Amino acid sequence: MRKIYVVGIGAGDPDHLTLQAAKAIGRTDVFFLLDKGEAKQSLVDLRERLIRAYSQPRRRIVEGRDPDRDRTPADYTGTIADWRHRRSLVVEELITEHLKDDEIGSILVWGDPSLYDSTIAILEEILGRGATTFEYEVIPGISSVSALAAKHRIGLNRVGQPFQVTTGRRLAEGWPDGVDDVVVMLDAQQAFTRYPEAEIYWGAYVSTEDELLGAGTVAEVGDEIVERRTAAREQHGWIMDTYLLRRGQSRLNGSE
Amino acid sequence: MRKIYVVGIGAGDPDHLTLQAAKAIGRTDVFFLLDKGEAKQSLVDLRERLIRAYSQPRRRIVEGRDPDRDRTPADYTGTIADWRHRRSLVVEELITEHLKDDEIGSILVWGDPSLYDSTIAILEEILGRGATTFEYEVIPGISSVSALAAKHRIGLNRVGQPFQVTTGRRLAEGWPDGVDDVVVMLDAQQAFTRYPEAEIYWGAYVSTEDELLGAGTVAEVGDEIVERRTAAREQHGWIMDTYLLRRGQSRLNGSE
Repeated sequence: MRKIYVVGIGAGDPDHLTLQAAKAIGRTDVFFLLDKGEAKQSLVDLRERLIRAYSQPRRRIVEGRDPDRDRTPADYTGTIADWRHRRSLVVEELITEHLKDDEIGSILVWGDPSLYDSTIAILEEILGRGATTFEYEVIPGISSVSALAAKHRIGLNRVGQPFQVTTGRRLAEGWPDGVDDVVVMLDAQQAFTRYPEAEIYWGAYVSTEDELLGAGTVAEVGDEIVERRTAAREQHGWIMDTYLLRRGQSRLNGSE
Repeated sequence: MRKIYVVGIGAGDPDHLTLQAAKAIGRTDVFFLLDKGEAKQSLVDLRERLIRAYSQPRRRIVEGRDPDRDRTPADYTGTIADWRHRRSLVVEELITEHLKDDEIGSILVWGDPSLYDSTIAILEEILGRGATTFEYEVIPGISSVSALAAKHRIGLNRVGQPFQVTTGRRLAEGWPDGVDDVVVMLDAQQAFTRYPEAEIYWGAYVSTEDELLGAGTVAEVGDEIVERRTAAREQHGWIMDTYLLRRGQSRLNGSE
């Protein structure tokens, strides 16, 4: 039976790699790379560095072309479903052509495969079609959220309190009900600017050489973060950032 | 300057350790252990195994007695604040007595230090008193939530959707507003039984030799999970479990 590892490789620091992930890389016969067709060269470099460091000499690397995707769709979920479908066809072709019986393939995923990543769903879609069969296993990784919290030395939750993980798109529609602590991913809108009284713990390219961090109330540091985001995106051609927004400072920090 | 590492060591599998954490353990002069005074021997064994495997031969290990804590308090936040305060006094005494100038101390934390753990808050409380000074750094780890999601091969969020991380105590008060996906920690109440139509992805002792997993609708598998929890807690003397509750299966799984 063919096997595929979905390997979380951490948020950018090569030393985020777990021993489990390093061992999986070492057992891999074929690495499947999807080129996002974007200028995220530092991420591509890091992935190659990890493969070089931990893989066996006879492993193969095959690349597929990631389908294009509308970045500002009217129908967000529908557009993602369509993009994911086209992506699953690319991945299925790679598996069919390059992964032989009893071989192990790996797909390396930034951060943690359970958080805002579609690799698992794509493999399920391929298996659901029934034409291509394989086993697969997911190897957890350090998420960008854990990396952000570590750099700011904060807990994501406060004692006995919940927190929500959401997108910039949703935060722009209003502060979520029932939580005072919100982790925001994928925020192209800079939705935090709507909440001047909240405290923000922001980071871009966290745990890489290009890391940027900022913290304070949005009223104090929000404009500066907007400027730094803009400058960084111009400099690198892309930006990957995350933040925690916290309101109601009277609650006990950290948690149990 | 003295330095302390708060090291996330993962959810139970020794191979969850990151290279960053292994290196921090290797640089450590003194390990501070707080004995919870409970029967979590398998966790204590794993911690010792990691120290043995990655530390330098001349490192020292000092143990403090974790203060007792009311497990069913009337005033939850107040009780935790008091317990944390007493705990900070124990840790401060360990640091003062055992960590010399320019030495490195480490506190090893299960899972990820940013998620339902009080070590960071305790160090801040000690620094806030002003009598004991040190630098400290947080090293992220694989959380029990990431480990659970990996074993079930699921994403925590669905496309463009938020999810909430909360406690059993809160879930027992009602399904949180504004989310269909809820990760629940610290659930002694088995609050999931209130939601028969939800899908549950449950795990106990995830990624250890004692791992238990269960999934299905609560109507189908809820009773069985209650029984397995009870039996496991009896067998081991303690239980550490986590689950994702998901409602509204029509939404697109996974995410981007």
